[in-house]
Amino acid sequence: MGCGSALPTTRHCLSAQVINLREKLFLIDCGEGTQLQFRAMKLNFSRLNHIFISHLHGDHCFGLPGLISTLGLLGRTADLHIYAQPDAGKVFSFLPDYFCKELPYQVLFHSFDPAVSEQIFEDRTLKVTTIPLKHRVPSAGFLFEEKPKSAHIRRNMLDFYRIPFARINAIKEGEDFVTPEGEVIPNARLTLPPRPTQKYAYCSDTAYDESIVPLIEGVNLLYHEATFSHKDLARAQETYHSSAQQAALIARAARVERLLLGHFSARYPDEKILLDEAKEIFPNTLLAKERLRIALPA
Amino acid sequence: MGCGSALPTTRHCLSAQVINLREKLFLIDCGEGTQLQFRAMKLNFSRLNHIFISHLHGDHCFGLPGLISTLGLLGRTADLHIYAQPDAGKVFSFLPDYFCKELPYQVLFHSFDPAVSEQIFEDRTLKVTTIPLKHRVPSAGFLFEEKPKSAHIRRNMLDFYRIPFARINAIKEGEDFVTPEGEVIPNARLTLPPRPTQKYAYCSDTAYDESIVPLIEGVNLLYHEATFSHKDLARAQETYHSSAQQAALIARAARVERLLLGHFSARYPDEKILLDEAKEIFPNTLLAKERLRIALPA
Repeated sequence: MGCGSALPTTRHCLSAQVINLREKLFLIDCGEGTQLQFRAMKLNFSRLNHIFISHLHGDHCFGLPGLISTLGLLGRTADLHIYAQPDAGKVFSFLPDYFCKELPYQVLFHSFDPAVSEQIFEDRTLKVTTIPLKHRVPSAGFLFEEKPKSAHIRRNMLDFYRIPFARINAIKEGEDFVTPEGEVIPNARLTLPPRPTQKYAYCSDTAYDESIVPLIEGVNLLYHEATFSHKDLARAQETYHSSAQQAALIARAARVERLLLGHFSARYPDEKILLDEAKEIFPNTLLAKERLRIALPA
Repeated sequence: MGCGSALPTTRHCLSAQVINLREKLFLIDCGEGTQLQFRAMKLNFSRLNHIFISHLHGDHCFGLPGLISTLGLLGRTADLHIYAQPDAGKVFSFLPDYFCKELPYQVLFHSFDPAVSEQIFEDRTLKVTTIPLKHRVPSAGFLFEEKPKSAHIRRNMLDFYRIPFARINAIKEGEDFVTPEGEVIPNARLTLPPRPTQKYAYCSDTAYDESIVPLIEGVNLLYHEATFSHKDLARAQETYHSSAQQAALIARAARVERLLLGHFSARYPDEKILLDEAKEIFPNTLLAKERLRIALPA
């Protein structure tokens, strides 16, 4: 929804992304204007229950007050969960105290320690783990891992062996089937393997840091900040950001499938310079842009 | 910059307007996304020194944190003055405390009592007076009055009477000129009257309230909120907003030159319904829209 860095430009909005997993929406970061992008992309506010904030710099969280208010105006009653570092609840406490006295739902802050990798969310289909990052303030990325799904039943086998309805779930989970005659039908003949599970890693903001590689090994899509070009490496180091080349080095080391670059400094009128330098190292790279939608698997 | 009401839509942004008086910019209200509109309209952030906040509802002030941060990133050193009701400084105190520790400039909150009309700003060219409004929370509008300018000297008279340079300012302020021969040249022959001063009144958010009429009498342009259509009057009354018809009644009673409607509810896909009902009462009405620029005098 936004792939600019701190200074807004006419081309880029501030950091925010949405994961849509089977029509459940998960928001990562919430820069100013996120609710406007949410609306513009025709996403359904009521499907959003969980927000993950990487760090407390304004360009990653100043959209929270407006979004929280809007959800209230829309009559939300379900709890809203916000995962962030421990200070977040305090920092945004002015909201319930002053602006949202009549909020018809609860905002629950769940804090995590950005210094260690820990699982911070889990439901039936997804788990989310933090990725400690290296920035000027405590900062964490997020690894979204789809959980293994059960196998698909082969419908024609169901009919052929007259498998009773009551056995289906067990077979989906891997059980063989025993016919009334005592014949054992191996599970592999009854099922098709599920679509492979997908992994998405979000790493922003961060300086170049190889220690994240084991945490993001082999993900299907890696979003890694690329605020600067390699020719501005000194500035990247000074501000604890990465160059596009460094993002590509991380992607290559972690053997990810695809790399998505974002968090672009306002200084580059055309981010092709960033794309080109990353592609030299990691060819399967693409540039983020506002309202881009990426399907997983590709 | 924004003429929607609390719920953002794909058509409207949140409340914010800029007055440009001889390249000095004055911001009125600062809904989420204001800094993005500022940028998109190619306004110069460094020309902004004074911000006036009508009331502390999110759609009128949640853009402040991002704007304040951005001004810091741009290297601002000049003080920024924010005029708002007394709670504002406290509500936004999380900013300097947490997000703007390294802010290279000062944010100064000046509080006013929204219950009474008082002059809250004055410089060489402008004064700003509050207009008490009637809303669910303390709310005030703002009257911007350009100060009388000095007369224009008629250049040919300057040459004709050989008026010394040292006398020019006094003549601009109304003095006659006495020639070395003792002849009195009346001021009216030496000068042309200045362009008439302009007055702009901003009234949002407010229920219908005739008591503001004397304060905005004869202004060149009145912005009056028109959140609802007359057919939704019950809803307007319940929420302390106005209908377009009510805005027009105020404009007519105050004999203003032009009426500008804004703060539109998201429920109207086309605001022509609001324009039409206002024009029946006050023909010289126009609809606000994003990035509209209105010159004064017309």
